[in-house]
Amino acid sequence: MKEMEPLFKPRSVAVVGASRHPGKIGYAVVKNLIASKYEGKIYPVNPKADEILGLKAYPTVSSIPGEVDMVVVVVPAQFVPEVIEDAGKKGAKVAVIITSGFKEIGRADLEEEVVRRARKYGMRVLGPNIFGIVYTPVKLNATFGPSDVIEGSVGFITQSGALGIALMGMTIVEKIGVSTIVSIGNKSDIDDADLLNYLKDDEETKVVLIYLEGVTDGKKFMEAAQNFTLRKPLIVIKAGKTAAGAKAVASHTGSLAGNVAVYSTLFKETGILEASTVEEAFDWARAFSYLPQYEGGQLVIVTNGGGAGVLATDVLAENGISLKTPPEPLVNELRPKLPGFASLKNPIDVTGMISSEGYVEAVSAALRSEGVGAVLALYCETAVTNPEDIAEGLIKEVNEMGGLKKPLTVALIGGRKSYNAVEMLNNARIPAYPMPERAASAMAAVINYVEARERVRLRLQELGNS
Amino acid sequence: MKEMEPLFKPRSVAVVGASRHPGKIGYAVVKNLIASKYEGKIYPVNPKADEILGLKAYPTVSSIPGEVDMVVVVVPAQFVPEVIEDAGKKGAKVAVIITSGFKEIGRADLEEEVVRRARKYGMRVLGPNIFGIVYTPVKLNATFGPSDVIEGSVGFITQSGALGIALMGMTIVEKIGVSTIVSIGNKSDIDDADLLNYLKDDEETKVVLIYLEGVTDGKKFMEAAQNFTLRKPLIVIKAGKTAAGAKAVASHTGSLAGNVAVYSTLFKETGILEASTVEEAFDWARAFSYLPQYEGGQLVIVTNGGGAGVLATDVLAENGISLKTPPEPLVNELRPKLPGFASLKNPIDVTGMISSEGYVEAVSAALRSEGVGAVLALYCETAVTNPEDIAEGLIKEVNEMGGLKKPLTVALIGGRKSYNAVEMLNNARIPAYPMPERAASAMAAVINYVEARERVRLRLQELGNS
Repeated sequence: MKEMEPLFKPRSVAVVGASRHPGKIGYAVVKNLIASKYEGKIYPVNPKADEILGLKAYPTVSSIPGEVDMVVVVVPAQFVPEVIEDAGKKGAKVAVIITSGFKEIGRADLEEEVVRRARKYGMRVLGPNIFGIVYTPVKLNATFGPSDVIEGSVGFITQSGALGIALMGMTIVEKIGVSTIVSIGNKSDIDDADLLNYLKDDEETKVVLIYLEGVTDGKKFMEAAQNFTLRKPLIVIKAGKTAAGAKAVASHTGSLAGNVAVYSTLFKETGILEASTVEEAFDWARAFSYLPQYEGGQLVIVTNGGGAGVLATDVLAENGISLKTPPEPLVNELRPKLPGFASLKNPIDVTGMISSEGYVEAVSAALRSEGVGAVLALYCETAVTNPEDIAEGLIKEVNEMGGLKKPLTVALIGGRKSYNAVEMLNNARIPAYPMPERAASAMAAVINYVEARERVRLRLQELGNS
Repeated sequence: MKEMEPLFKPRSVAVVGASRHPGKIGYAVVKNLIASKYEGKIYPVNPKADEILGLKAYPTVSSIPGEVDMVVVVVPAQFVPEVIEDAGKKGAKVAVIITSGFKEIGRADLEEEVVRRARKYGMRVLGPNIFGIVYTPVKLNATFGPSDVIEGSVGFITQSGALGIALMGMTIVEKIGVSTIVSIGNKSDIDDADLLNYLKDDEETKVVLIYLEGVTDGKKFMEAAQNFTLRKPLIVIKAGKTAAGAKAVASHTGSLAGNVAVYSTLFKETGILEASTVEEAFDWARAFSYLPQYEGGQLVIVTNGGGAGVLATDVLAENGISLKTPPEPLVNELRPKLPGFASLKNPIDVTGMISSEGYVEAVSAALRSEGVGAVLALYCETAVTNPEDIAEGLIKEVNEMGGLKKPLTVALIGGRKSYNAVEMLNNARIPAYPMPERAASAMAAVINYVEARERVRLRLQELGNS
């Protein structure tokens, strides 16, 4: 996907419709490019300005002296075709068209005209009707969203603009690091499949999350998705899962949300992990971005509260994951350290009597135990423990192991200190959540991805043999 | 339920096993009673102390000069029967037995002995194996949990101790006001049904939420639950919904989690609202505690982001709620104020171009519109709006209306300012959430409760006629 490289790693960006007025989109985009310390050249384009935000401005793209890889377009819809023509002549490789007022309001003709002109010059088009693109490895933030996204390895593709930009802000508060955020809007040219084909080989991206209303080319999407999931986990939030939701999609982006059963089959066959809510999707993405891959072996739950263990067990069972008796050596190691009434089945209930040190020791023993492939640690804040000590203890143990060698997700349930502890763990790249069900659901996704990928591999092998 | 009154409104509390040593449960309980400014008398009982936390201590309950309504017991299990005997002779009306080491570790005999002795004196027993009880209207906090719970109208009953005490802390951080928190543990005497029978008439409690592992007396629970839901909403988190979860329940509290289908039928017949997660249960409880009752009329969604509208529509549809075209007068009022491409179907998509004022105005118009029975307001943080202005504007509008006359739930999705706005709204008793699905789910619960209650009423009427 050499062709897609200028979208993620342009060496220079021209902003057509750049503005000196705060509050304007053409101002915000230039400001974000500067604030994010974009490594390439930035050329504001505005025939009425000499300088914008300290950068020399040009009247047209073709009048820019250096090479232009990407043009970001924010001028009104009727002017977009001529901008594309001008950029095409200049040799620009990709147009990021933020401007709305195309197919989504019945102007499919204008949108087709834009794509036709871009194709003439071999230029690819992202959008229109989008908020732009972020790619943190080259510090590119060509959006009018927040400027302070956190670097990381989650890729986020969104078909919805307003929701997407809002979630971009959410990732900052929730400290979810991203490699890329792509607003794809009307998908006049570049679609989810193109992005997946590129991102599957992108070393900076460990997991991709798509907010999806509908797919236009089902076959193309399916091929891209299965090739992607063979390499990395792909999480989808499918909007328009119900008949009513599908109707709402039609009046939103004009996409065909399609038949629920069709998507469900498509997702299953391609190994896509379907999240039921936005929160769940980002919970999963966080886990995938921090954790090593699940390599088999049993999942052990360690909890200091029986109730939390039960809730997690339910979530796992609902996701097809069953718990087995913990390995004998682990049981033998833990038994003398725990109260007599502790349960050493799975969940391992170390009881509410355990100290912070005792709890950390039990989780650590599970992580070190051979035969244990993954650990789900649940902690209820009690009078005899301090959640911040637990977080510190777990971080220290994991550091001593040289980092996590198997998946671990943690729930710390309680008051302010528990919320702090959740943040401490996440800062240390140990996925943590304030609710037991969320930690369990993330763990289920981590385990189920490996199985889903195996199913895809076998199916493709069978197809190859037939 | 006169008999249960001393559990919630004791005029005096003796703490048997009171301690001078911070870190001890017998210290924490006395400290919490003092810190919460409990309105009745507090008597520490400890034969080895003259004074505890500034209060005169007594060697036994029977040696206390004044009347004793409640005894809170924290001494080791083997001493509990004689404490009960002593308290019974003194005329105590209820024993709150925090001590563990009874049925849950195979000592059913000791537990039965305790109940037998209590019955002899007409004393009721809460527990054993619990963290205590909170009832904020009389500032009673007889627990070893956090001391700073927030006063409000949510009643929380929990069968799990460690999880329950952790969630007690969570309500403080999430600013969920409670009327009561009851840890019921082994339910040797007082069970969920007894509590529901009392709380259905308690004016300080608007909604009850139960963390439930299993019910012992199904018929009693069913009767209490249906009588309760005829008056107030009852939310249940059922732990042990799956076969694996039920097994985990057995090794936790020894309860029979029972057959999933049985509970599902029980909940449906009694009008119980079953939440799928702890987070969802508290989201619903917050909505019920703030909102007026749904009195019929259609639900209108107002959103500035199409995607958020689609996600909410899906959640509503999954909960059996369908959306109709908004009332004509509302459409006519809004049309001239919105961009031409705004959608005036339901969801009403006021578009991402709308200003903070325009958004507030649209939500307000929906709230004031006849024929609209409930409003779900979804907001995605954009560059042209400020979520804090939106929160302020909504609060002002609602105040001008003299408070909410119909249910409203709000989602504000975005960065730090959106999270602040969520908190501002919740402080003003307008239920708000950081995710669209959560606001939609809470609204669905508010509407579905009224229908569930009607079904219960009709079924009971039929039974009465047959």
